[in-house]
Amino acid sequence: MHQPISEAPTLSGRRSFSRALDDYLSVRSRTLDLAAPLAIEDQVVQSMPDASPTRWHLAHTTWFFETFVLERHVRDYQPFHPSYRRLFNSYYQSLGPQLERARRGTLSRPTVDEVIAYRRHVDEAITSLLEHGEPSAEMEKACSLIEVGLHHEEQHQELILTDVKHALGMNPLRPAYRRTEEESPVEADAIRFIDLPGGIVEIGFAGDGFAYDNERPRHRVHLEPFALADRLTTNAEYLAFMKDRGYERPELWLSDGWDLLQRERIRAPLYWIEADGQLFEYSLGGVRPLVEAAPVVHVSYYEADAYARWAGARLPAESEWETAAEKASVDGNLLDSGWLHPRSAARASARDASDDDPGSRLPRQLFGDVWEWTSSAYSAYPGYVPPEGALGEYNAKFMSCRFVLRGGSCATPGRHIRATYRNFFSPDARWQFTGIRLARSS
Amino acid sequence: MHQPISEAPTLSGRRSFSRALDDYLSVRSRTLDLAAPLAIEDQVVQSMPDASPTRWHLAHTTWFFETFVLERHVRDYQPFHPSYRRLFNSYYQSLGPQLERARRGTLSRPTVDEVIAYRRHVDEAITSLLEHGEPSAEMEKACSLIEVGLHHEEQHQELILTDVKHALGMNPLRPAYRRTEEESPVEADAIRFIDLPGGIVEIGFAGDGFAYDNERPRHRVHLEPFALADRLTTNAEYLAFMKDRGYERPELWLSDGWDLLQRERIRAPLYWIEADGQLFEYSLGGVRPLVEAAPVVHVSYYEADAYARWAGARLPAESEWETAAEKASVDGNLLDSGWLHPRSAARASARDASDDDPGSRLPRQLFGDVWEWTSSAYSAYPGYVPPEGALGEYNAKFMSCRFVLRGGSCATPGRHIRATYRNFFSPDARWQFTGIRLARSS
Amino acid sequence: MHQPISEAPTLSGRRSFSRALDDYLSVRSRTLDLAAPLAIEDQVVQSMPDASPTRWHLAHTTWFFETFVLERHVRDYQPFHPSYRRLFNSYYQSLGPQLERARRGTLSRPTVDEVIAYRRHVDEAITSLLEHGEPSAEMEKACSLIEVGLHHEEQHQELILTDVKHALGMNPLRPAYRRTEEESPVEADAIRFIDLPGGIVEIGFAGDGFAYDNERPRHRVHLEPFALADRLTTNAEYLAFMKDRGYERPELWLSDGWDLLQRERIRAPLYWIEADGQLFEYSLGGVRPLVEAAPVVHVSYYEADAYARWAGARLPAESEWETAAEKASVDGNLLDSGWLHPRSAARASARDASDDDPGSRLPRQLFGDVWEWTSSAYSAYPGYVPPEGALGEYNAKFMSCRFVLRGGSCATPGRHIRATYRNFFSPDARWQFTGIRLARSS
Amino acid sequence: MHQPISEAPTLSGRRSFSRALDDYLSVRSRTLDLAAPLAIEDQVVQSMPDASPTRWHLAHTTWFFETFVLERHVRDYQPFHPSYRRLFNSYYQSLGPQLERARRGTLSRPTVDEVIAYRRHVDEAITSLLEHGEPSAEMEKACSLIEVGLHHEEQHQELILTDVKHALGMNPLRPAYRRTEEESPVEADAIRFIDLPGGIVEIGFAGDGFAYDNERPRHRVHLEPFALADRLTTNAEYLAFMKDRGYERPELWLSDGWDLLQRERIRAPLYWIEADGQLFEYSLGGVRPLVEAAPVVHVSYYEADAYARWAGARLPAESEWETAAEKASVDGNLLDSGWLHPRSAARASARDASDDDPGSRLPRQLFGDVWEWTSSAYSAYPGYVPPEGALGEYNAKFMSCRFVLRGGSCATPGRHIRATYRNFFSPDARWQFTGIRLARSS
Repeated sequence: MHQPISEAPTLSGRRSFSRALDDYLSVRSRTLDLAAPLAIEDQVVQSMPDASPTRWHLAHTTWFFETFVLERHVRDYQPFHPSYRRLFNSYYQSLGPQLERARRGTLSRPTVDEVIAYRRHVDEAITSLLEHGEPSAEMEKACSLIEVGLHHEEQHQELILTDVKHALGMNPLRPAYRRTEEESPVEADAIRFIDLPGGIVEIGFAGDGFAYDNERPRHRVHLEPFALADRLTTNAEYLAFMKDRGYERPELWLSDGWDLLQRERIRAPLYWIEADGQLFEYSLGGVRPLVEAAPVVHVSYYEADAYARWAGARLPAESEWETAAEKASVDGNLLDSGWLHPRSAARASARDASDDDPGSRLPRQLFGDVWEWTSSAYSAYPGYVPPEGALGEYNAKFMSCRFVLRGGSCATPGRHIRATYRNFFSPDARWQFTGIRLARSS
Repeated sequence: MHQPISEAPTLSGRRSFSRALDDYLSVRSRTLDLAAPLAIEDQVVQSMPDASPTRWHLAHTTWFFETFVLERHVRDYQPFHPSYRRLFNSYYQSLGPQLERARRGTLSRPTVDEVIAYRRHVDEAITSLLEHGEPSAEMEKACSLIEVGLHHEEQHQELILTDVKHALGMNPLRPAYRRTEEESPVEADAIRFIDLPGGIVEIGFAGDGFAYDNERPRHRVHLEPFALADRLTTNAEYLAFMKDRGYERPELWLSDGWDLLQRERIRAPLYWIEADGQLFEYSLGGVRPLVEAAPVVHVSYYEADAYARWAGARLPAESEWETAAEKASVDGNLLDSGWLHPRSAARASARDASDDDPGSRLPRQLFGDVWEWTSSAYSAYPGYVPPEGALGEYNAKFMSCRFVLRGGSCATPGRHIRATYRNFFSPDARWQFTGIRLARSS
Repeated sequence: MHQPISEAPTLSGRRSFSRALDDYLSVRSRTLDLAAPLAIEDQVVQSMPDASPTRWHLAHTTWFFETFVLERHVRDYQPFHPSYRRLFNSYYQSLGPQLERARRGTLSRPTVDEVIAYRRHVDEAITSLLEHGEPSAEMEKACSLIEVGLHHEEQHQELILTDVKHALGMNPLRPAYRRTEEESPVEADAIRFIDLPGGIVEIGFAGDGFAYDNERPRHRVHLEPFALADRLTTNAEYLAFMKDRGYERPELWLSDGWDLLQRERIRAPLYWIEADGQLFEYSLGGVRPLVEAAPVVHVSYYEADAYARWAGARLPAESEWETAAEKASVDGNLLDSGWLHPRSAARASARDASDDDPGSRLPRQLFGDVWEWTSSAYSAYPGYVPPEGALGEYNAKFMSCRFVLRGGSCATPGRHIRATYRNFFSPDARWQFTGIRLARSS
Repeated sequence: MHQPISEAPTLSGRRSFSRALDDYLSVRSRTLDLAAPLAIEDQVVQSMPDASPTRWHLAHTTWFFETFVLERHVRDYQPFHPSYRRLFNSYYQSLGPQLERARRGTLSRPTVDEVIAYRRHVDEAITSLLEHGEPSAEMEKACSLIEVGLHHEEQHQELILTDVKHALGMNPLRPAYRRTEEESPVEADAIRFIDLPGGIVEIGFAGDGFAYDNERPRHRVHLEPFALADRLTTNAEYLAFMKDRGYERPELWLSDGWDLLQRERIRAPLYWIEADGQLFEYSLGGVRPLVEAAPVVHVSYYEADAYARWAGARLPAESEWETAAEKASVDGNLLDSGWLHPRSAARASARDASDDDPGSRLPRQLFGDVWEWTSSAYSAYPGYVPPEGALGEYNAKFMSCRFVLRGGSCATPGRHIRATYRNFFSPDARWQFTGIRLARSS
């Protein structure tokens, strides 16, 4: 999950510095909670260039506050260590050279303890700022940057989990991250498509709270009538695609996807394991039998797209998804639920299942469980203006060869997600909690 | 230029088989005309994986007619050579294994003469089919496939030129493809932006003639008001970007573009040469002094996008481009003009230059000169349905990580281009005649 | 085959300039004879980085005479073309930048005709020099360099054949280079080991004629008693190794060799083809049934070494080979025989087959057929002094990670080989005519 | 340092099991001592494919005893963990699949604590075996394997240091491994060459103690008269080579070495640092000013060879080195000295410096300080027979493209080195303590 940076909405006036401090301390401590089940060793390794060591996430999120808040808005602030500026810069080119991303796992220092001390140093400085700062334009700016930093840190909370899952899941010992509850097998009800009328709709963020710049401006889009699946695609459905030789039929695949299959010998979702003729899945709770009714997860855009083609459907455009989701309440199997794995959809209610009033029906599982690949290449909304300055420097820098994902996953903090939220990844990415919702043109 | 395959529009009834034969013979002979200035050696080499030897183009376009027309619609057709089916298949996975693309230049056989004999063999069979065929549903199908084959061959005519340009241009001797006329320096008039109102517009092909499936269906799009530059970006303007350290400022670049610059040490458009403090450009007519008023050409999407950002503008969406172009007549510096290089814009007429009736003004250089990068990722239009069968197999298979280009270039046959035409390339491609037209949100 | 450059032995006094001219014209014309069966297209392609296009060999050997003889020893010599100095320099770093080796096949110019004209230009200048030159120290130096150039050209004659074999053999059409005679199957007689006493021996060149610097100085070596196979390893014997799962048993292989097998999926000698359960071999005469009694050819050092280990033997040291060969006359299946493929050993004569006088027996097939891998890493002889100046610049530059091969092959000019001759290649090379002779410690 | 495995010399009869146990416990505890200064994080990282994490060394050396001693010679031995067999196998192909070497640093489990427990488990089993075992042929075999295992472990002790040095030295923070003493600057006395007569000499191991199989058999070699430098090449001398543009003159370099320089932009020994116009060197004690009289260290074979050529000398053959060293006592700056860095040569004694009796003079610094590159490609001695069975499986598997190094370094346990010891590395390796001693042909 890359980090599009937000426009800075005014903060003070909406809540006091003390409210900001509460938020700050709560988000910061949750990050440490996520690292708590890990051995020191787990926080050091990097299992592929796209993933980062936990220790790096702990330090980089701290670097963000140090660089954008403390060094700019606190007079006489003493940086914790002169080299950290370079070591923990992720990709802000204008802030100087960075350590090559793929080499993050080759560094043993600073140690975890030193990084914790770094966090403490910065936390104390931010606490002091928020406790003693006088209302002013500069203070308002600082608070706004702190808010950005917290959303940034929440993105890294999800990455800590997905990166650690990759490191532990690639280890032949396949250790669990922590004990988690296991889902009892249920039966999925048949998938249904909910018709939506299209026409001129509005998408994008326009409210008061926080949103990233890439969700703005709210704007009009014309949609043809379409239909959206009322739940996520399940493991059982995906298995039917595999049994129908889905991975061997080039006509189902985008050209780049087909090449990827051959190059990396991909034949199943990332964490599936076949042993003694049975299917298992590595989860953050360890290796478990595959739950057929649960959503398929850890598939690339190419797999999602090929599956949809095989199923006689397609992936939704992000505008379609947002239109369908904007009336839904933001709840679901998110990080806060503690499952750390997608779950089977709750059975549709009688009313949902009836066709009495299809217009009022809402798809299930819109938020949480898995990030849903959309068919939309990630790009700027019409009228988009990147924010000024260093933070805004790279707002749109990932706007090529990425696809938009919507809805958050079982590793996304509930406070972090909303209907207008645009996540984006390269179409070959599989280590995030990514899954499939089908759509159709009516 | 990849080859999206068309829906098969009905042909007979519109024109006789004899008209089809005229077209066939005329397109086929132009292909040979394009190879005529080349030495045998020039037709063998492959200077990079994306480019193919001329000889391969000559054979592959022939393979297309043999495979899709003759083997299917002519009883007892005798293939010219049993191995050619594999050797000259480009990427149709369902038709069996192919020679690895990057190895096309390692093959010395069949020789050019053998390929010419292959062309003759197939031409005779097609001629016989069109001369002796009786009207029937199958014959209609065959004619329709022949028409597809001719458009396919026209795409390869452009590729012959761009691929040969690369092979000769990378050769330290930098030989010319053939003598071409050289443009006299002129002064470009100032760029102007033409305002367009947006709203609900329709784009896509809906007429009678030929169009590829990816141009369909015609559909509605909502556009915000926007403005489009009335001519292409010139070498002089691009040079100003370079002098302003455009290639060294990361904040101007997409992340993948910045990585590309570093990896391939890109510091100027592909064929620019600096010698003795002066700038030259390799053209199909050989090395020549850079013409400042001529359109900049052979830039990647990343360069086009970075330039636009530097210029305080952006690239147009393909829907914006099409809306602006649909009233324009399809003429310009296309292959038929024989320049084989983009030319400076004709000066705007007095009326164009006045602001009397801006609504009636049309941008210059919409067709020909250079393919114009749009900000639109190549994707399916709403309601798009891929055609059935082998030819339709891969209609959409390039719909990831490609950007749409519009308007044709100085190497595009005039008969081949139209306002709805969607070309697409990877954003790092630079060997096509690709250039820049700016846009702005009003 | 890289080109170790010779010390310049005095030439004049031994033969007249006219004799030198005869040699010159005869070697030069044989090079063209070797290219004669080829289409122009065949002379352009490069099927892998280690191989070069024929056209490049034709030009590079000419460049050698131009650079080292004409530019240095002929006043007012006019180079044929100013860019050829760079285009056709192989690896002489001190003579300026070179074209990257792997890109030789991407160049279509100069054309074959232009290269022939280049040859003619240089041949005329050399002819004129040898016809009109007056005896002098400089002329002596020039003659000596001409002699080096001829030996250099003979090395490239062999490379023309091996490089063309690779290009044609990798082509799915597998065309023949030219018609050659086919060997009738014979039965190989059992392999016998000839005992040799060891002790202090002398190896290296010390005579009057031409030899490369790397064959000097002649020096003493101590050898333990050893035995040498009296003929080359045959296809049938190698096949037994393969059937015994030789390619699947890591304990038989050097570590780097095992890695190579996995990386390149090597499971047989380079040009073996299995079809319909039968074994064939691509030869310069085309695809033919494998001749069981013929020497196995186109194996890497790793394959030769693994085979020897499997056979309970080892490869000979180069000093062992030379000691055994120095009494043998230099004849065998060399380029001059015209077979262009290794042949089965002539049956041992009655006397050879008896054990009456083993000391007097000589191994068969020492010269020609295949280059024999030795266990000796290529390195400088004790007391070796590289020659002065540009030609001597790189005499020893390949003395790491190369192994010595002895005896010449069916593609080596007979005039070129001798018992002290040291060829050397990387242990993974397989496109030369390389084979196996076993040895044992007594 | 790869691990050639020894022939198993008879052990019992020479010393009691209790002596073996003392050795065992002492070597095993030294390994832990070497890890003691490290943070857990330092024991996890892998800074390049050639280096391994400390934790892996701790486990792999333990795996060796478990696999070769306990599983074979102790009835009912319970392996500590079923997966460790694969995880900690280095390269014994016949013992099953291994984890890809370059991925060792991606594993966080087993943790350091778990590895320590593994060591303890195995140590207890070995202790029990040695305390309770009854003399028998099998027990003798077990003792012999234990001895091999201890020498194997000593090799890994050196690797722990060199691998950790690389990981810490590549870290931008450049932390010290531990505090070490710093050498006071001294002046080197002029280099002198000691003449040696050559003739028939014997090299190789023939005594009673332990030696690896690759040191056998002792055999005769003929040497020409030669001279050997009486001390190692210093930093000051190497600096003179650099100032003379040594890294920019292709004529000084082997071809593969020159390519390496360009590819990896090598311009100085591995750990040299230039800052503010001054030269520093990263050592295990941290960054320090370069000591001019100290031996140059961390150079590749290519650098050693180029330096020698520049200096008008050459590298010694391994037989020359051994002949010169066999009368010397095995002492010097080895691991036991605790310096962990090469030191300046002690000044030659008056007698050494005189020319009275040159025959009796011995070169200084033969043992310890740096491994000395020889010009000898690593290969089997005449008459070499690899030992039977799994341990012997790969005795010679590195006998291609490696060069022999002699004499041990400041990281080699004193007990481990001897005059006949043959270390070997790839010619591009620079992370070992490798340096230069010059030789000359007399």
